[in-house]
Formats: sequence, C-alpha cells, structure tokens
Amino acid sequence: MTRVAVAQLPLRVGEPEANRAAAEAAIREAAEAGARLVVLPELVNSGYVFTGAEEARSLAEPADGPTVTAWRRLARDRDLVIVGGFCEVAGGAVRNSQVMVDATGTRAVYRKAHLWHDEQDVFTPGDGPAPVVGTALGRIGMMVCYDLEFPEWVRSVGLAGADLLAVSTNWPASPVPEGERPVLVAYAQIAAAANHMFVAVADRCGAERGVDWVCGTSLIGPDGYPLAGPVLRDGPAVLVADCDLTHARNKASGPRNDVHRDRRTDLYWKEERTS
Amino acid sequence: MTRVAVAQLPLRVGEPEANRAAAEAAIREAAEAGARLVVLPELVNSGYVFTGAEEARSLAEPADGPTVTAWRRLARDRDLVIVGGFCEVAGGAVRNSQVMVDATGTRAVYRKAHLWHDEQDVFTPGDGPAPVVGTALGRIGMMVCYDLEFPEWVRSVGLAGADLLAVSTNWPASPVPEGERPVLVAYAQIAAAANHMFVAVADRCGAERGVDWVCGTSLIGPDGYPLAGPVLRDGPAVLVADCDLTHARNKASGPRNDVHRDRRTDLYWKEERTS
Repeated sequence: MTRVAVAQLPLRVGEPEANRAAAEAAIREAAEAGARLVVLPELVNSGYVFTGAEEARSLAEPADGPTVTAWRRLARDRDLVIVGGFCEVAGGAVRNSQVMVDATGTRAVYRKAHLWHDEQDVFTPGDGPAPVVGTALGRIGMMVCYDLEFPEWVRSVGLAGADLLAVSTNWPASPVPEGERPVLVAYAQIAAAANHMFVAVADRCGAERGVDWVCGTSLIGPDGYPLAGPVLRDGPAVLVADCDLTHARNKASGPRNDVHRDRRTDLYWKEERTS
Repeated sequence: MTRVAVAQLPLRVGEPEANRAAAEAAIREAAEAGARLVVLPELVNSGYVFTGAEEARSLAEPADGPTVTAWRRLARDRDLVIVGGFCEVAGGAVRNSQVMVDATGTRAVYRKAHLWHDEQDVFTPGDGPAPVVGTALGRIGMMVCYDLEFPEWVRSVGLAGADLLAVSTNWPASPVPEGERPVLVAYAQIAAAANHMFVAVADRCGAERGVDWVCGTSLIGPDGYPLAGPVLRDGPAVLVADCDLTHARNKASGPRNDVHRDRRTDLYWKEERTS
C-alpha cells in the first residue's frame, strides 16, 4: 500500500521564492502524513498567467536550478517520489515541464506536448513521449494539464504500464452547470477507468491576474471513482489516500474483459495509418 | 435546431412482440414531442440476458425482419431518424447489431465490435468501422454499449465528422459510491467533450434474470455536460432536448484551441505503429 499525496497550491506569478516555499511546505506536510509520492501542480516556480514570453523566460530555470534541486533534496531526505511542474529553460527553449525526482535524483523531465491558449506564445512544445518511470513505489506516468484531454496520450501511458498517472495542472475555471462536477475532473476519472490505473491530479488555487482555477485536485482509483477530492474549493490543500498500486496491474474490467486486451487494434486508426 | 429523443425501455428477454410494442410506443411518444431523431437501447427485440447462444439465435432476426421493418415504417410515416439495437442473424452469424433508418429506408447496420462478458459466447463481433451517416438532420455516428469504453473507437467517429454519436446500450449496474454518478455516464460525457460532439445514450430499465441496469439514458452536449438526464431511475423514460447539431462542427475548445487539430498525431501510437 502506497500513501499518495496531491497538493493544491496557491502560487503567485513572478514570486519563485514564495512559490518554492509553498511547495516545500506542502511536501513536508505530505511526508508528515506518511505519503511516499507527492504530486504538485503545473509551473510551480513561475505561476501561470504571464504577461508574455519575456516574463516566462525571465522566470524559467534549468532542470538543475533551485526548484528541482530543492525537490531532490527533500526526496532524498524523506525518501519520497516527487512529481511537479516547473517553468524550464533548456537549450535556449522555454518549456512547460514536469520533473520526477526520487531519493536517487532526477528520474525524468517531461515537456508538455499539448499547449493551451497563450502557452503557444510562450513555450516550445515537447516532442517526446509522456514518460512512465519505474520507481520503488511502482510505475508512475507523467503528464501536464491539457495533455489529459487527449485520450491517445493517456492511452500511451496506460499501455506503457503506468500504475499511476501523475498530472500536474493549472486548470482555468470555466462555467459549470448547477449540480455538475467540472468536466475536467471527469477527464481524470475516465483516464483512470479506461486504463485501470490510478490518476493523481494536483491543481492550482488562488486567482492569478483575473484567472480562477477549477481547484480540481483529486486522486482517482482504477475504477474511475475518487479516493480523495476533488477539492473544488479555492484554497491550499494536501490530500492523501492509500493506494495499492498493484491493483492497476490487473486490467480486468469484468470476469471476461480487460480494458487493454479488448482493444480492437485491428480496426483502429485505419485512415490515419494510411495517411 | 433538432429535437433529439433518447428512450429508456423496459424490455423482456424472449418476448419480441412486447419489446417491439414498447419501442414503437416510445418512438410515437418521441415523435409527438417533436423529436426528429430517436435513439433506442441495445438488443431491443430480444432482451439481453440470454441463457446461451441458442436462445440468442432463436430470437435473432435479419435486418429486414419485423423489428427493423416496423422502425422503417415509423421513420417514413413520421419523417424520423431512428437508431436502435437489435439481435441480428446475417449470413448464419448472430450479431449484436445497431441499425439506422430514416424516411428513405435503412441507412446503416453496424455490428458491435467490442463484446462484453458472455456476449463472447453468443455474438460474432463486428469487423467494420463505427458508421457516421449523413442524414437530413446532420452526421450521426453509431456505437453499442461497451464500444464507448474505447476512446480510440469514439475518436474514430469524432474524426469521421459525427455531429452526434448515438449509443444503444444495456449498461449492467455495478456498485456506485455514495454521491457519485455512475462512471459509465462519465464515459459518455468525455466522449462528447473530447470530440466536441453530442452524445445520445439510450439505456435499459427493468431487471432481467437478476441483472439490474444503470438506467443511464442521457443526452450530452459537446461541452460534456448533460442536456437531459441521466435518468438514473429504474423505469421507462423518453427524454428530449433541442440540439443545434451545427455546434459540433466547431471543434474550438477555446479561442486558440481545437480538440481535433491540437492532437499530436506526430507523437501518437509510435510503439503500435512499429509493432
């Protein structure tokens, strides 16, 4: 059984030291609660609502910069796996990146492949796969925000054997009909159910330059139902839940069905394969 | 604006005449309510919980049998598009099929590609694409029950230009945590949202040989939120909602984003393409 934490953080654009402190406090809180895996939001160091590419570049740091270095230190000291988003500069390009660190150091850096809205002016999109990393806790997949809205991308992580998909996000709020759960949370539920894996979503809180957030921090089980959250309340939160990650290795959706084996790959992508 | 109806029917295994009467009554009710498209459940003629392959075969009928013939007559008389499931025998094979009829006759017969549980003993799975048919109302996609749990299949219909996906289903009930919506309904919501199309789900009601149903009959808008339903009550229902199907032609998910154009097809299926 692995205790997993998802942290909803009130970040402030352009205040990296305050943001690093908020993340560090949440990581410590999660560790005190017994968590071994901690998932943090998107762009933790920088905030999200940039005035433009210049501001983003001014806030970007390399993957061995102060933010990731702090997370590596915490991961080593507390024997944690930490997955979080950060504004990265690498080879001159500014990236919307996500890092995984554990007691041994940096395990993976992923660059968001699907860019939302004005991110297209700011970031170079990733051109590599969404990683699935074998850790001491299990196989952990990585993905950032809008990536989750592409079932092909989610499936790639599921098929690569992820027990848990860690999603770092800043979900901008949009109108939700009375009595409905925000549809972005349903994306996380179906990502989990369709692949029989855990999905851990760390979202933002705290309005930033007029943008509110879904505050959809949640931990979803392989059946698609929440084990913790969604928070849906604008304030910091660290949720924990105990997950038997080995459950995600069994893809049975019934006595005679299997969410991966039942795929009709003989019928999919016919047009796209020939194009 | 197109008024769409989804009908939740109390069918009885082995009583095709009663089942045809129930479907006809629902179609008439929908037409009286002004609907132009009527979606019916899976296996309307036969019921679902067969004792085995023999019983299913004894209840199967060809695509020009009494069930589809009755629907064709109603479609012609009332100028409707009707989509519903039926137990079909074709070329000696028994199929879990779905038909679309309109005033001009039969437009498409689809055979369920993903078989659930003991259907594997009863039906020959389909080996053709999920159809998307141009009708007087718009482009309507077709799919049966478990098919909906495969995002690849849903995507194929979205990419083929469906304005609305008509899902004929018999969703067997399974435990749902307190306060949660059944996850199968969330599959319909995400099918809609991820492809910006309407999704119309017609489910069963009425316990059959010990099997209860989700009773998840619903009509979902392109934003992923219900326009009508889910019913979630065990009893017959005909829900209607007015849908501007042209809204599904606009795939924008934001001022600068598009649910189809933003796909990173350069990155998907790399392993599967090379395997």
